[in-house]
Amino acid sequence: MQTLTVIKVGGKIVEDETTLAQLLKDFSAIPGPKVLVHGGGRSATKIAAQLGIDSTMIGGRRVTDADMLRVVTMVYGGLVNKNIVARLQACGINALGLTGADMDAIRSHKRPLKKVTLDDGTESIVDFGFVGDVDRANGQMLANLIQQGITPVMAPLTHDGQGNLLNTNADTIASSTAKALAPYFDVTLIFSFEHAGVLCNPEDETSVIPHINEQLFQQYTADGTISGGMIPKIENALEAIHAGVKRVIITRADAIDGTQGTIIC
Amino acid sequence: MQTLTVIKVGGKIVEDETTLAQLLKDFSAIPGPKVLVHGGGRSATKIAAQLGIDSTMIGGRRVTDADMLRVVTMVYGGLVNKNIVARLQACGINALGLTGADMDAIRSHKRPLKKVTLDDGTESIVDFGFVGDVDRANGQMLANLIQQGITPVMAPLTHDGQGNLLNTNADTIASSTAKALAPYFDVTLIFSFEHAGVLCNPEDETSVIPHINEQLFQQYTADGTISGGMIPKIENALEAIHAGVKRVIITRADAIDGTQGTIIC
Repeated sequence: MQTLTVIKVGGKIVEDETTLAQLLKDFSAIPGPKVLVHGGGRSATKIAAQLGIDSTMIGGRRVTDADMLRVVTMVYGGLVNKNIVARLQACGINALGLTGADMDAIRSHKRPLKKVTLDDGTESIVDFGFVGDVDRANGQMLANLIQQGITPVMAPLTHDGQGNLLNTNADTIASSTAKALAPYFDVTLIFSFEHAGVLCNPEDETSVIPHINEQLFQQYTADGTISGGMIPKIENALEAIHAGVKRVIITRADAIDGTQGTIIC
Repeated sequence: MQTLTVIKVGGKIVEDETTLAQLLKDFSAIPGPKVLVHGGGRSATKIAAQLGIDSTMIGGRRVTDADMLRVVTMVYGGLVNKNIVARLQACGINALGLTGADMDAIRSHKRPLKKVTLDDGTESIVDFGFVGDVDRANGQMLANLIQQGITPVMAPLTHDGQGNLLNTNADTIASSTAKALAPYFDVTLIFSFEHAGVLCNPEDETSVIPHINEQLFQQYTADGTISGGMIPKIENALEAIHAGVKRVIITRADAIDGTQGTIIC
């Protein structure tokens, strides 16, 4: 089967001209078919503030009210996505910007009310607003586009099929897309983040764990080597592997060629 | 040859919930393959003002500086385009939102400095900023999408192939698209605007001229029946006919089924 690389980059990378230029150069150099999934980052918060819209965060997550949905639709679906597409076209990549609504690429449903533990330790039932939990990505349609030489560039927005756009986490967009494309390609899913990989010692960037599988994950969580926010990240990666993705790589944004970082398979 | 309808609607129509809902219903009801081209309208001006960006108009045209380009990319390419796409998906239309950068759909070049007659009658050399004059629309790519059952929804943005998005008039997007698709389909191009058609008497909405061709156009301009801003509109329509478009219809936004208005062919 033909290989395919799905790369998720955070909003911070695509907002800064220097890191964006490097990313586009690195992304263009990756051989074979590929998909870029980008986050939105702080520009949405900044533009919302300029428009007099407050950003409400509960338990580290953004609450997306109707006004904020308009802002993320503008910023993620318009400003960030279309600039990346235009820049990739200049690199000779036939990019196509997609939200989940475009060609029904990713269908989701509005997140139901959720019990959340707040900073003060109390629990609260929270309505996250216009946030979408993914039902399915349209693998056949995306595979068809990719086989025509097109490079999808995916914004962290989905739709519910009832006419509503929904705000969806970019990591979820990336893993849903990778899983949906697994029947058609030998898929490598690369999550870029601020560290060189999964670290044994969070203070030491050279302490990258080169390889994690199900068994090693159990061991590392039992002995405390892996803890905190890395646990759900690796659980998600292992879930993608179970769903047919060949390998997941967690690495820094300046190493998206997949030769460094932690390989999960 | 299979028929295809390219419909241009103004920003005003897509900004108002009542007129947008009617438009989407009417558009969905049009049989056969179709393309929707939308303007941006006043929301860009409004959002720019909220962000503290001045809208400069010279000779009735917007000057697009770097800040304003960011705003129209957000509003036209994100907010307006993606909402239409999500709403059409709910109507059973497999819509795909496109700027000119997506799949290299429409290539343009930055408008050179232009001599403009100002309101006070003096002439001035004006730099309209990041405004794109169309070089070509990618008819083969668009025809291929349409033949796969996809309905392109086109925002009034193009790209220069060098990584820059450019602001382009929606009428121009519509006529360029219609002309580029003429080798593949029997194309009807519908321009919706605020009147029932080309009127003999601008004060009388029932005075629609049902049919105009080259010869009648010469006659109507010579005798003063057609004047002012309608002249370039009809010249553009006739140019599309020369380029292979089968018919151009100028009509009201609530009559996009093409059964009313002025037919130019």
